[in-house]
Amino acid sequence: MMMAKSVTGTLAAALAIATPVVAEPLRHWTLQDLLSIPEVRALSLSADGRTALYVVRVADMRNDRVVAVLRRVELKSGATRDMLRVRWIDQLRRIPGEDAWSALIDKGDGVQLYRLTADGTIAPLVVHPATAIFGDAEGAIYPGYGHAPLATGVRAHDWSPDGKRLFYVVLDAAPRSSKVRHGEQVVIERARRRAPGTATASIYLRSNGQDSLIATRPQSDLSTFFARSFVRWKPGAVLFDVTEVDAADRSHVMTLAWSFKDKDTRAVGSSADSAEAFGPHGGQLSSEGFGERRELVETVAGGETHSYGRVAFALDGRAVSRFRSADGKRTIVGIRTIENPRFGLAVLDAKKIRRIGGALSLNNCDFTPSLGRGACIAQSQTQPPTVVEINVASGQIRRIASVSPKHEQLAPLQIEPRTWTNRHGYKATGYIVWPRGYDEDRHYPAIVITHGTDADQRFANRENQWEYPAQLFAERGYVVLLINDYSARENAEVWSARQAWINETKSVAPETMRRMIWLNGVASYEDAVMELVNAGVIDRERVGIAGYSRGSQMVNVTITNSTLFRAASSGDGGYLEPAFYPDVAGSYDAVFGGPPTDLAALVHYRQLSPSLRAEKVCAAVLQQVAAPLVPSIDFHTALRKASVPAELSLYPGEDAASDETHIFHIPSNRLGAMQENIAWFDYWLLGKRDSTSPVADRYTVWDKMRDEAQPRCNGARLPLEG
Amino acid sequence: MMMAKSVTGTLAAALAIATPVVAEPLRHWTLQDLLSIPEVRALSLSADGRTALYVVRVADMRNDRVVAVLRRVELKSGATRDMLRVRWIDQLRRIPGEDAWSALIDKGDGVQLYRLTADGTIAPLVVHPATAIFGDAEGAIYPGYGHAPLATGVRAHDWSPDGKRLFYVVLDAAPRSSKVRHGEQVVIERARRRAPGTATASIYLRSNGQDSLIATRPQSDLSTFFARSFVRWKPGAVLFDVTEVDAADRSHVMTLAWSFKDKDTRAVGSSADSAEAFGPHGGQLSSEGFGERRELVETVAGGETHSYGRVAFALDGRAVSRFRSADGKRTIVGIRTIENPRFGLAVLDAKKIRRIGGALSLNNCDFTPSLGRGACIAQSQTQPPTVVEINVASGQIRRIASVSPKHEQLAPLQIEPRTWTNRHGYKATGYIVWPRGYDEDRHYPAIVITHGTDADQRFANRENQWEYPAQLFAERGYVVLLINDYSARENAEVWSARQAWINETKSVAPETMRRMIWLNGVASYEDAVMELVNAGVIDRERVGIAGYSRGSQMVNVTITNSTLFRAASSGDGGYLEPAFYPDVAGSYDAVFGGPPTDLAALVHYRQLSPSLRAEKVCAAVLQQVAAPLVPSIDFHTALRKASVPAELSLYPGEDAASDETHIFHIPSNRLGAMQENIAWFDYWLLGKRDSTSPVADRYTVWDKMRDEAQPRCNGARLPLEG
Repeated sequence: MMMAKSVTGTLAAALAIATPVVAEPLRHWTLQDLLSIPEVRALSLSADGRTALYVVRVADMRNDRVVAVLRRVELKSGATRDMLRVRWIDQLRRIPGEDAWSALIDKGDGVQLYRLTADGTIAPLVVHPATAIFGDAEGAIYPGYGHAPLATGVRAHDWSPDGKRLFYVVLDAAPRSSKVRHGEQVVIERARRRAPGTATASIYLRSNGQDSLIATRPQSDLSTFFARSFVRWKPGAVLFDVTEVDAADRSHVMTLAWSFKDKDTRAVGSSADSAEAFGPHGGQLSSEGFGERRELVETVAGGETHSYGRVAFALDGRAVSRFRSADGKRTIVGIRTIENPRFGLAVLDAKKIRRIGGALSLNNCDFTPSLGRGACIAQSQTQPPTVVEINVASGQIRRIASVSPKHEQLAPLQIEPRTWTNRHGYKATGYIVWPRGYDEDRHYPAIVITHGTDADQRFANRENQWEYPAQLFAERGYVVLLINDYSARENAEVWSARQAWINETKSVAPETMRRMIWLNGVASYEDAVMELVNAGVIDRERVGIAGYSRGSQMVNVTITNSTLFRAASSGDGGYLEPAFYPDVAGSYDAVFGGPPTDLAALVHYRQLSPSLRAEKVCAAVLQQVAAPLVPSIDFHTALRKASVPAELSLYPGEDAASDETHIFHIPSNRLGAMQENIAWFDYWLLGKRDSTSPVADRYTVWDKMRDEAQPRCNGARLPLEG
Repeated sequence: MMMAKSVTGTLAAALAIATPVVAEPLRHWTLQDLLSIPEVRALSLSADGRTALYVVRVADMRNDRVVAVLRRVELKSGATRDMLRVRWIDQLRRIPGEDAWSALIDKGDGVQLYRLTADGTIAPLVVHPATAIFGDAEGAIYPGYGHAPLATGVRAHDWSPDGKRLFYVVLDAAPRSSKVRHGEQVVIERARRRAPGTATASIYLRSNGQDSLIATRPQSDLSTFFARSFVRWKPGAVLFDVTEVDAADRSHVMTLAWSFKDKDTRAVGSSADSAEAFGPHGGQLSSEGFGERRELVETVAGGETHSYGRVAFALDGRAVSRFRSADGKRTIVGIRTIENPRFGLAVLDAKKIRRIGGALSLNNCDFTPSLGRGACIAQSQTQPPTVVEINVASGQIRRIASVSPKHEQLAPLQIEPRTWTNRHGYKATGYIVWPRGYDEDRHYPAIVITHGTDADQRFANRENQWEYPAQLFAERGYVVLLINDYSARENAEVWSARQAWINETKSVAPETMRRMIWLNGVASYEDAVMELVNAGVIDRERVGIAGYSRGSQMVNVTITNSTLFRAASSGDGGYLEPAFYPDVAGSYDAVFGGPPTDLAALVHYRQLSPSLRAEKVCAAVLQQVAAPLVPSIDFHTALRKASVPAELSLYPGEDAASDETHIFHIPSNRLGAMQENIAWFDYWLLGKRDSTSPVADRYTVWDKMRDEAQPRCNGARLPLEG
């Protein structure tokens, strides 16, 4: 099979620097392997470039929670040791001028700021009563992102370049109020399951052992509350960004300056030196144009532009942030390749541009102050995260140490990067994960997994595959297709639609929006699958699809517009459902032209909203959700009313007053959700049941739904009786 | 003023037996008076008719909760004393053959069954771990009705006529599960804010000190879980009702029988001897026909009917339950008069019918086993609850003791019963509460308060006036109109519409439903107000309307269909909002013809759903809610979008994991909600502000809404600048 063979060369190249050094025989993936993948959160290099500290988050199955581990690795020897194992570590920073680091750490009394030295000494820098909670819990001030409710004393910090001044933000939540809530404070709960708390942020500057309160900020200031103060140190002042919300509820970012001499804070307007990557000319960098090559452009104040030429990569918000040499003449920015997407570095010197990075993604990089040497996490679809050293001058990448020796023992799966062109000419990147021991003479079941644009050369990236265990599916004999959305910069028409969507304008007609943002993607999935069906690889009667969040939109639209899929798993979504309108009115207005209670707009909802097209579904539909939100419930109800086999599974939070998060954070929920996905696809695509599965008690419910289902789709086939 | 004067005679008659015996000067109503009205929950008479026990629920302001007080009153002397003050007392029953009572009591370890003697001795009969919670809280097995989350060990009990056998129900909740929930267990949370728990009921029979488990019942058995087992004692068996839910989710009531001899339980079919009132012929009693007189009919097995003639009252579910003499020849049933609605008793002997009761309502009655004597709670709009003795033979009613001497000290307001006939000929009963010191030469502001059909001769009945302090409004110079819905038995067309609504059929066209169930009522309010406007009593520019639950439907429909009202307060409602469709699909199908996502049905939503008619509103709209449910939020959002002054106020629960209930149960919330209503109507109708009001900090928000409001209604006037 040509496609299967073509991957071998790529894999060999990718594995050249990744060959595990362990002697044990390689083994196959298990659920425990997926659960125990360490997620690297931060990496910080010593000023001399000899030592790197990095943070991983790993599942602690015994306590059913995720813990953070701080590790120290010697770049010369690769010797690695754990320094600290606590609930949370974040914002690991080198302290300028010292052989020490700082980090936000929760040792059990909330997130506080500590000083760390290479010998493992940990001393408090700022400890503040941790009353404000980030998390999906009653009374939390803001939702969490894939973590347990997090009590927070210190929210952000930043060092002056000489290490003598410390900017930091502490939070103070109002005690849980038994007061009546009014107006907007009630309205926001329409979309949130939990009643929010409120807090104030206090911004301090520490200098010569003295702490000065330089600003107090309300909770509406997202810059401050989400650690995006973008602190800039000037000779006589420190500048930082805050978000102001005006009377009409419009927000804008404003820059404040604290003068060291005058000891006061004043607004310095909406600063041009935004958080965008800096170029060597002091301007903002951007990737322009459409298609497979983009122009890297630097725009300086006044609007003058410098082009670095057309390149096969783009700047990307998920790439490592910018680094700038002390003399300002050299910049290193994180980039992402357009085909076979992987992260790398671009070194910019005046007009020259040079890329560092090869078959592996480079993430979580840090550099010495001169930008001479760096350290990154290198990884790929098959290569577990590894610490590497970067020689910036030569571009050489040297493997230092594995982040997870256990995962190096896995026999790599064959994972083939692909760019598919659909019937309309749109290109989607992605990967084919070939079943273990692929046999050209067999026809395989297949599962498409999709989540926006993050199918790339990272190792079992959860943002992409969520709780859909792609590697396990491949081990179990499925062809897995990880398929990205086509790029928002595919062409000008797609770009216009995306811009209308993001900016919530009605400038693009609902018919076009539908096509540009959803239906074209459905064609990509169908055509990618059919290519392998026609090549005799995939059994077209056994094709499933899965995706969470943006992926759940695509899954729900796909199964209500395509008859190709027999089973689906849709994770924690619900966008496009009519009942969600008041929570996302501007966004829906852009997509549908108005609310579903407008007669004219309703016509468009009936063309796109999954629950209004339930009778068209040929797939058995599993929805796994983190909270019982209305849109998921409505879709489920519509499916059941249309006699479509459907399961809605709610994964609970830590306790009665908190919920699981959009990215699941409770290890037992992750395990359960993966097991449920395996059972679901095995049941509906293969007619297989496993009496030892933790969801085995659901088979009787599924049997009943199967027996009652209306075979409404051409060629649609219900699973074999078990 | 004729109308004001006509009330005097009625009042005098009503007060004849109610004249307070206290010497202190009469005083005016305060908020504390409204908060401290004792709510009589049960009354039970000793077998010799000498002693009555009764239970009141009263606010404990210091602990901000409601407590239950058990009182003993000697019927001869009226001497009353408190026996017990605890969290909860329910199901107070005389134990046959003993000089003792039983009751469900929560002394702090959950609701358990106790035996009480007249001397105050309290001994446990059944104590069971109280794990199941009724309440609006996370993990509760069912919502509560106007009470704090209630841990329940024993749910129900009943004594055999000889007092030797005890039927009782205990509950066992499953421990809070960290398990994934599926399907229907998730769907039910669409309409419920809190994740439910699950429990099992065990039904026991105690006999000769032995407890036999006679049935275990699932949580879907509403008969058992809501203490409606309707226990019937036969010579050899005890019969009790359970609710069975079939595979198609249809429920029906089934009767089980436990044989004392065989010691087993078997189904005896759907018993004809239902919980309906028994007649002297052993048949079911019903009130038939339409209009102001109804025919009281007894239907015996086989369908034969006996008529007791046409009477000016009807059987009513809110009246006291049936009593039957030991020989079965005499029945006493609770009734309610059709005009100037008040509760009374009908004594039925074979073909004779005799009414007991006069100007006062008789509630919470109990009788001696022979039905010779009884005791009731007597009350009216102006008469606080009083214990009275009933001589069944003579029909005489003798006042025994006040339930609340404090409220006897209130100078009665003039409250005039009325029956209004609207422009379409429909009659609505209700009351005019005249402002204190009514002056014929002044024009008064007015407030309509409505909640279905419970404006009647009860004392400040909360189901009717909720947190709208009618008495305070009258003290403050408002004319208050308590207006009922016209009767469902007004005529055959109304009856058909009501039946279609209740039975969720589409047999009546949406246009007719709209008119019969809502718009006709709007005409009643308008016409009742305009009668007093035209009589020079009410200032038509200062008219408000308030109502909770069914009343909130009527308020929301009224202000979106009438320009008469300038301020509205809508309590914990949201029915008729499109977003609520999936939670009440059958009901909405009956009203609108289908879901709002059907193009044909949407036309009807646009005619009736308040949020789709927000731009027609001339009133400033306050919504007070017990939970941030979607429909109330949607209406609020639509009002604000249409620049209608609107406030949405959420009254919180005891803690982060529980909510206030539909009938508020937290005294501080009650106080706050009444104060907010006073401030709201004073502000929008009178242009008055009170800087000492607890909601004074909202005036700036209201000022802003007032200044931004579009004066869109003919004659609509915004309040004076303060």
